[in-house]
Amino acid sequence: MQGQAQQQAYDRGITIFSPDGRLYQVEYAREAVKRGTASVGVRTAEGVVLAADKRSRSPLMEPTSVEKIHKADDHAGIASAGHVADARQLIDFARRQAQVNRLRYGEAVGIETLTKNVTDHIQQYTQVGGARPFGVALLIGGVENGEPRLYETDPSGTPYEWKAVSIGADRSDLQEHLEENYEDDLTLDEGVGLALRTIASANDDELAADGVDVATITTESEAFVELTNDEISTYIADNDLEPSEEDDEDGDDE
Amino acid sequence: MQGQAQQQAYDRGITIFSPDGRLYQVEYAREAVKRGTASVGVRTAEGVVLAADKRSRSPLMEPTSVEKIHKADDHAGIASAGHVADARQLIDFARRQAQVNRLRYGEAVGIETLTKNVTDHIQQYTQVGGARPFGVALLIGGVENGEPRLYETDPSGTPYEWKAVSIGADRSDLQEHLEENYEDDLTLDEGVGLALRTIASANDDELAADGVDVATITTESEAFVELTNDEISTYIADNDLEPSEEDDEDGDDE
Amino acid sequence: MQGQAQQQAYDRGITIFSPDGRLYQVEYAREAVKRGTASVGVRTAEGVVLAADKRSRSPLMEPTSVEKIHKADDHAGIASAGHVADARQLIDFARRQAQVNRLRYGEAVGIETLTKNVTDHIQQYTQVGGARPFGVALLIGGVENGEPRLYETDPSGTPYEWKAVSIGADRSDLQEHLEENYEDDLTLDEGVGLALRTIASANDDELAADGVDVATITTESEAFVELTNDEISTYIADNDLEPSEEDDEDGDDE
Amino acid sequence: MQGQAQQQAYDRGITIFSPDGRLYQVEYAREAVKRGTASVGVRTAEGVVLAADKRSRSPLMEPTSVEKIHKADDHAGIASAGHVADARQLIDFARRQAQVNRLRYGEAVGIETLTKNVTDHIQQYTQVGGARPFGVALLIGGVENGEPRLYETDPSGTPYEWKAVSIGADRSDLQEHLEENYEDDLTLDEGVGLALRTIASANDDELAADGVDVATITTESEAFVELTNDEISTYIADNDLEPSEEDDEDGDDE
Amino acid sequence: MQGQAQQQAYDRGITIFSPDGRLYQVEYAREAVKRGTASVGVRTAEGVVLAADKRSRSPLMEPTSVEKIHKADDHAGIASAGHVADARQLIDFARRQAQVNRLRYGEAVGIETLTKNVTDHIQQYTQVGGARPFGVALLIGGVENGEPRLYETDPSGTPYEWKAVSIGADRSDLQEHLEENYEDDLTLDEGVGLALRTIASANDDELAADGVDVATITTESEAFVELTNDEISTYIADNDLEPSEEDDEDGDDE
Amino acid sequence: MQGQAQQQAYDRGITIFSPDGRLYQVEYAREAVKRGTASVGVRTAEGVVLAADKRSRSPLMEPTSVEKIHKADDHAGIASAGHVADARQLIDFARRQAQVNRLRYGEAVGIETLTKNVTDHIQQYTQVGGARPFGVALLIGGVENGEPRLYETDPSGTPYEWKAVSIGADRSDLQEHLEENYEDDLTLDEGVGLALRTIASANDDELAADGVDVATITTESEAFVELTNDEISTYIADNDLEPSEEDDEDGDDE
Amino acid sequence: MQGQAQQQAYDRGITIFSPDGRLYQVEYAREAVKRGTASVGVRTAEGVVLAADKRSRSPLMEPTSVEKIHKADDHAGIASAGHVADARQLIDFARRQAQVNRLRYGEAVGIETLTKNVTDHIQQYTQVGGARPFGVALLIGGVENGEPRLYETDPSGTPYEWKAVSIGADRSDLQEHLEENYEDDLTLDEGVGLALRTIASANDDELAADGVDVATITTESEAFVELTNDEISTYIADNDLEPSEEDDEDGDDE
Repeated sequence: MQGQAQQQAYDRGITIFSPDGRLYQVEYAREAVKRGTASVGVRTAEGVVLAADKRSRSPLMEPTSVEKIHKADDHAGIASAGHVADARQLIDFARRQAQVNRLRYGEAVGIETLTKNVTDHIQQYTQVGGARPFGVALLIGGVENGEPRLYETDPSGTPYEWKAVSIGADRSDLQEHLEENYEDDLTLDEGVGLALRTIASANDDELAADGVDVATITTESEAFVELTNDEISTYIADNDLEPSEEDDEDGDDE
Repeated sequence: MQGQAQQQAYDRGITIFSPDGRLYQVEYAREAVKRGTASVGVRTAEGVVLAADKRSRSPLMEPTSVEKIHKADDHAGIASAGHVADARQLIDFARRQAQVNRLRYGEAVGIETLTKNVTDHIQQYTQVGGARPFGVALLIGGVENGEPRLYETDPSGTPYEWKAVSIGADRSDLQEHLEENYEDDLTLDEGVGLALRTIASANDDELAADGVDVATITTESEAFVELTNDEISTYIADNDLEPSEEDDEDGDDE
Repeated sequence: MQGQAQQQAYDRGITIFSPDGRLYQVEYAREAVKRGTASVGVRTAEGVVLAADKRSRSPLMEPTSVEKIHKADDHAGIASAGHVADARQLIDFARRQAQVNRLRYGEAVGIETLTKNVTDHIQQYTQVGGARPFGVALLIGGVENGEPRLYETDPSGTPYEWKAVSIGADRSDLQEHLEENYEDDLTLDEGVGLALRTIASANDDELAADGVDVATITTESEAFVELTNDEISTYIADNDLEPSEEDDEDGDDE
Repeated sequence: MQGQAQQQAYDRGITIFSPDGRLYQVEYAREAVKRGTASVGVRTAEGVVLAADKRSRSPLMEPTSVEKIHKADDHAGIASAGHVADARQLIDFARRQAQVNRLRYGEAVGIETLTKNVTDHIQQYTQVGGARPFGVALLIGGVENGEPRLYETDPSGTPYEWKAVSIGADRSDLQEHLEENYEDDLTLDEGVGLALRTIASANDDELAADGVDVATITTESEAFVELTNDEISTYIADNDLEPSEEDDEDGDDE
Repeated sequence: MQGQAQQQAYDRGITIFSPDGRLYQVEYAREAVKRGTASVGVRTAEGVVLAADKRSRSPLMEPTSVEKIHKADDHAGIASAGHVADARQLIDFARRQAQVNRLRYGEAVGIETLTKNVTDHIQQYTQVGGARPFGVALLIGGVENGEPRLYETDPSGTPYEWKAVSIGADRSDLQEHLEENYEDDLTLDEGVGLALRTIASANDDELAADGVDVATITTESEAFVELTNDEISTYIADNDLEPSEEDDEDGDDE
Repeated sequence: MQGQAQQQAYDRGITIFSPDGRLYQVEYAREAVKRGTASVGVRTAEGVVLAADKRSRSPLMEPTSVEKIHKADDHAGIASAGHVADARQLIDFARRQAQVNRLRYGEAVGIETLTKNVTDHIQQYTQVGGARPFGVALLIGGVENGEPRLYETDPSGTPYEWKAVSIGADRSDLQEHLEENYEDDLTLDEGVGLALRTIASANDDELAADGVDVATITTESEAFVELTNDEISTYIADNDLEPSEEDDEDGDDE
Repeated sequence: MQGQAQQQAYDRGITIFSPDGRLYQVEYAREAVKRGTASVGVRTAEGVVLAADKRSRSPLMEPTSVEKIHKADDHAGIASAGHVADARQLIDFARRQAQVNRLRYGEAVGIETLTKNVTDHIQQYTQVGGARPFGVALLIGGVENGEPRLYETDPSGTPYEWKAVSIGADRSDLQEHLEENYEDDLTLDEGVGLALRTIASANDDELAADGVDVATITTESEAFVELTNDEISTYIADNDLEPSEEDDEDGDDE
């Protein structure tokens, strides 16, 4: 009770530290991320895989309208987890940064540079008053100088680079699945499979083709490509993830 | 009691997260939507149907003054549920965006683009301080590239695309009615019937012609058309929704 | 007690939603309207009637200084109820809008357009921080395209169109009186009589000529005309509303 | 106790409504007016009389430095009650408005126009945040189109026109005195007498010549004229208001 | 206890009224004035005398650095009591106003005009948010049109004109001393004596020459002149105010 | 309990002093520094050594993405401890200052000048409202006029110059280790060894090559150089710090 | 307990008065000054001496980095006590003022003028909202018109001129030491000795040469000169202040 009352005293203000040096609003924004369905990124030698759980709330909702994976530039994609409307703001910000880079320097923005542009933007919302932090985490994947790169941004505005990473619901379980199954010499196909099996691992090892989005950026094409439902179905079948029956889940992704 | 006190600590601030990652002001704005009478959208192969429950509070109030459906552009309409004065702001915003698009690009704005312009505007009011969120949900329907499109915006600023959807009072019941009765190959006439029956389903399966607004945007005409009272009466009769006696209901759409 | 404490938590902030989706400051502004003496509007086939109860606090106060009905433009008038100083702001705003319309388009502003200009202005004060809502309701009446129109604005910024309507003290009783006595084919004379009898109905069916303001805008003249005390006295006599003795009421219109 | 606690919840904010539609800060500003010594205005057929109780705190204070009556323009004067420093702001504002009117239109500002300029200014301080209301009431008197006019402004920003009126301490007693003794056909001399007797009525029917300020604006001269101490002494003698002994009162006009 | 709790509810906000119409922050600023050592002003037929108690805290502090009397313009001086740093702001403001007057109109600013410029400036800090009131009172003395004038400004921004006045610590005792000893036909010498005896009256009728500042503005010279220590010593001796032994008082003028 | 309640009263505001003259938000920001893994700086006669503990949370995270040491300019580096996103802001600020210095003066910025630019920037965030302090400490090392210099910045904005210093977790233990082992005539090699042994001293005297970053700026090269993993491994072996087994620590560096 | 609760009610706001006319934030800023190690200023006939206790926290910290005495201009120096980062802001402000004076008037700024520029700047932070006061006191010493001058600034923004003064820790003891030992005809050498003995008096009459900074500005040179460690050692020896053994004190100067 004592501890709880003390916590309440510090977590109401947007931009202040608690006595133990924590920023509660940022930590609560991380909770908003956990409330979103999961997204997974896998970096393979042949390119980066982004996959997102997008199980719909209603059979009448267009699956394509649950946007979890976005093209940021020709050679870069972004998957999100958390507050959907916040994600749209950051993705628009990233796209503008990518365009500005092409206009100013005549070349594609580096994936690391793009990520840090975004995290600097996020950080401002955690330090300056008058706004709340962004309640969303992003996976930014792409090809830079011929190399596949995969970054995460969190609500504090910290950039992390990963071989394979999960954000959103069940993060610790999914990350554990990735750690147990990731290998450095994965092919792109194996990467897609690992991403799908990771998402399915929190869902009785089942996936519907229209319940997941998958995109890849290969070192060969250096292009953001979204997989079709048919392609995803093939991967689901190849990985034994077909659903036994239709889920009628009431997932709430914000 | 404990939980309640804890909740109070976080829901008074406009733009801050609760410890479990929720934005209470946005959730309360959703309650404002539920306090408004229902609007329903149905996408058919022949076009989009927007219908709105506008039962008046008093026999002396002009039914036309309860505005629930608005023309956004030649090829696009908007139905609303919730705080009426807020809806007017967003609809004006949408109209200006549509006009700007025609001026700048010489063509009609896409329905998806229009929707996302509106949801980005809504999101700002949930993150930046100094204002409250919009207490209204919108259905934005129209024709884009010859295809009917139907979108919902919610108070968080998230866009959703639907085949058929209900907003406002009794949403879960009405949505269930839509899910049970929607079919992909509806004609426009069947779509209007489904929309009216859905609204009536929460009202003892009865509707008065001046208690509902209906508008359509067909793929053929690509034009926003409001049905006359006579046309609506015919649909009401065809769908067996005539009221047995005059309601004297004290509906409160705000 | 529990409910009361919970309410207090949400009604102190200007622009935030309560857990059930209400804006308490707007609802309290509606209470400010109820604290003002009544105004009544009646739309007849021959024109619009605006009437206002302006019983004075003191025999030394000039009755003309209790302003309840104002000319907005040649063809439009406004009656108010509630916080007097707030009403003056909105009426000035309406007048400027009407002037701007004449300057910009060379024609009289439509009554509906004028009303919506005012309600959009009102809405801003309910959403953006730094100010309180307007504590006043208005009746805006006039002639548009040869048709009489009568609108109400409320503190939320919602416009309503009416055949006959009452704002201010005793609204529900007066509105009931209007509903029971209104007929669609009233002459202007009958409309004035109905308006006066409605106001008197909450005052022992008595009225003093200098205790009420009446104005009309007829379809024939399209001009805002205030009735003289003599004209009002005639109507009072014709409708059997003469006071039996002088009231010494301590009315508080604010 | 319950009621008291509830009131406290709403009267701390500057610009918000209480649940019963009241603006407590404005009502408290009215209390500040009551803390000031009284001013009285009387409109006669021959002109307007302004009189103000200015009993000094100390025999060493210059009586002329307790300013209660001010010239606003050649044809207009202002008496105040309440917070002295606030009164100075409003009087400066009124003077500037009068000058602007002369410069812009080449004629003296109307007394009603001048009053409403001032009340609109006052209203802003009751609606927009960042400042408190003005804690002062004014009597604005003058001649407009050959007619004497007498207005009151209150802290809410409402203008009232009066035949005779009192503001400040003991208002209800003084107003009752005015109502009992006012007649429509008073001469200016009788008006001055009534004003002085009204002020004296709350002070054992005694007045010192340097304890009161009197100014007149007659329809003949259309000029603001302050009475000399000798002239005031004559009126005091003529109205039997000479003090029996020197008061050593500790009046606090603020 | 009840009253105390109620008071606390209203005195924390900078610019709001209490239920009885008081501005607590202004009243507390008056307490800050009382915490300062006294200043005294005396108006004689031959000119104005300003005197200030400036007993130092430490024998190592330069007596000249405790500034209580300042030249505002050639013909005007200012004595202060209260918060020293606030006094410096107002005195700088007054000096700039005096310079502006000379530049704009080519003549010395009137003492009344100068005082009202300062009080209008003070008033702003009591009404507009974002700053606290000035915690200082000033005596502004000088010669205007050949006449000696002596004004006081208080933290509310009210100007008062005096024949003789005291501000700061022990005001009521010192003012009583002035009232008992002031005469209208004092010579300047007698005025200096009265001022010094008044200050000494709260200090066992003793004064040290370096514990008091004295300045005069005579109608003959129309010039602000500070008395030397020797001149002050003569006055002290002439008025029998020599200290019997050195005071080691710990006066706190702030 | 008493003391705790009192503390709470003062540590919620961003920029206010507590009764004992402390700025709690700054002290809490220092706690945020302690929550970060340690960084160590050692100044030797041959140059400055910066070393940082960067143990990763997950085997899938790229060690290079945990950024603790940054190049600020050719001749200057910065190591950080605490809130990572805040560190990025300050490092960007430092880089821009260094560039501006080269552009404006045509020469490299001095290390002391660079440090004070940064600390002045930090101080602003502790005094002016609207933002929280930076939750990070920096070590700024480089060569200035041929001399190695090593500075620390803390969240209050105070610059300190050190021979050897530790920031972040276990500061007091690590600083004690430095004090016991530092000698003025260390070679650069010995300096690197001391830095690594200091970091390892809080970790059972073990280090992994990819769990630590090391950079040097020598007086000879005047260039910021990051050591390769192989070079670090050699130092680890030479200092007997090889880990006996793989750590699976759950370090949380913000 | 009662008094304590009452105090808490007034000391949380930045710029408001308590009921007894105190500014708690300014008083708490004075506590921040007391938390700093002491600085001492002594004015002699031959010039001004500034001395500062700068005992370091750690043997590895560069003594020169604990900055307590700064050159403000050729002829002026500043010693500080309290919040180090705040001191840097004020010293930079003073330096800019001195430069501006040279540019604008072509001559060195007067010490009194410089001091008052600084105190006016400090005062703003105690009256206007949005920032906290400066938690630092300064001693500003120099030569003006051939005369040595020594001023103190405190957190309220009040300037004081002194013959000899101490700020920071143990002020009352050190000031008493100065008062007992100061003589008006000190030589500069004796002044340095008095300053050092005063600092040492709170430290068992011992001082280390690198634990104290000393600077002088003589009337002959009119130049700010910092004493070398050797020079200080000589003074320490001459005044019998050599430390008997090395102190390992944990002084905390902010």
